[in-house]
Amino acid sequence: MKIGIIGTGIVGKTIASKLVELNNDVMMGTRNVSDKLASKAPDTHGNPPFSEWLKINSKVKLGSFAEAATFGEIAINATNGSNSVTALILAGTKNLSGKILIDIANPLDFSNGMPPSLLPGLHNTNSLGEEIQKTFPATMVVKTLNTMWSGLMINPKMVGKGDHVNFICGNDEAAKTKVKDILNQFGWPAKNIIDLGDITGARATESMLPIWLRVMGVTKSGVFNFNLVH
Amino acid sequence: MKIGIIGTGIVGKTIASKLVELNNDVMMGTRNVSDKLASKAPDTHGNPPFSEWLKINSKVKLGSFAEAATFGEIAINATNGSNSVTALILAGTKNLSGKILIDIANPLDFSNGMPPSLLPGLHNTNSLGEEIQKTFPATMVVKTLNTMWSGLMINPKMVGKGDHVNFICGNDEAAKTKVKDILNQFGWPAKNIIDLGDITGARATESMLPIWLRVMGVTKSGVFNFNLVH
Repeated sequence: MKIGIIGTGIVGKTIASKLVELNNDVMMGTRNVSDKLASKAPDTHGNPPFSEWLKINSKVKLGSFAEAATFGEIAINATNGSNSVTALILAGTKNLSGKILIDIANPLDFSNGMPPSLLPGLHNTNSLGEEIQKTFPATMVVKTLNTMWSGLMINPKMVGKGDHVNFICGNDEAAKTKVKDILNQFGWPAKNIIDLGDITGARATESMLPIWLRVMGVTKSGVFNFNLVH
Repeated sequence: MKIGIIGTGIVGKTIASKLVELNNDVMMGTRNVSDKLASKAPDTHGNPPFSEWLKINSKVKLGSFAEAATFGEIAINATNGSNSVTALILAGTKNLSGKILIDIANPLDFSNGMPPSLLPGLHNTNSLGEEIQKTFPATMVVKTLNTMWSGLMINPKMVGKGDHVNFICGNDEAAKTKVKDILNQFGWPAKNIIDLGDITGARATESMLPIWLRVMGVTKSGVFNFNLVH
């Protein structure tokens, strides 16, 4: 399948590698391709520059936001939540129209220091997932994977033998079914994918970021996930 | 130990029963004692009126908010989050001074229908736990047990052999140590009590209500809890 990933950060790279391993055709989208390729600076996590990653992951294509959105039969939002709507508008409403958009971003607000809070206007009675769905009504937004460290998204067996949960929500049932199939390929069995219903479920999953960040802060590790115990 | 519980709802009753079972001396506080005893109406969950519960739980004393706060060596806030600060002011700043206040309440806003959102001004960059601590600076507020159904608070073994977590936070280490001892008596082993640090951790645990409510909505059961999988 042809998949366009909007964003070139750690989440985008992690998902891109896995999708290529699963024999998908992947294009990542960035704001400015030549700037991205020319940059010699390590990323915010201290990883090597994107161009070096791309040499190792040579099957991944790089294009503009709009090129990646056009390329993908399915698109993935892996941008910083504070930039997501802007980046997706640059990707192009018509290029995303009629397509599934998997939204993995979180509306984190780093403007008041660490740990981040949630962005004003995008929490409690709204969410980033809903805001994207409202901005792109002809796109089927499916929110998932946003409640964990990127490494676990594509390798849930890394902790607890994979016995923990990933939430999913979205307004379109067929779109969620397709995304669940991709999640299965990432290693998520159906029983561990909790369907929260329509896209307003994004309020719930994005609201897990404060506890995720707090637990990471006290345990000094992001390599954990939540499970539901019944 | 003498314990004063502010609030006579399902959480207060559940905790009171358990504390009596553990040989504590318990007084529950209500706004108006004679009204509370005279009421023949079932509670909001359809349970029998408080007076009937009190006949069965005859070791529990009933007093005003202020009498319960005065009575307790330790106080427990089991009021509705939207009324907590008002109720605790009625309980009396000096009656709570120098004491541990275990805060189990959540800042739920039912004014926009179901499921509730979080109260404006008491989430994201603030919390009910912090607001109470700011209002009663001479009281040692310890937030805990607010992320689950009341039945599990005092009987964690009811699900998953007790293998799930309860969060705790507060500014006073000695107060948290005492509260952890009570939690141990409720059935929480030390390994499952996750200390999130100071009272700002309440932002994180109160922010779990949206996912808790959403999961309850889709699974039609509140008898579950979260576990951390490392």
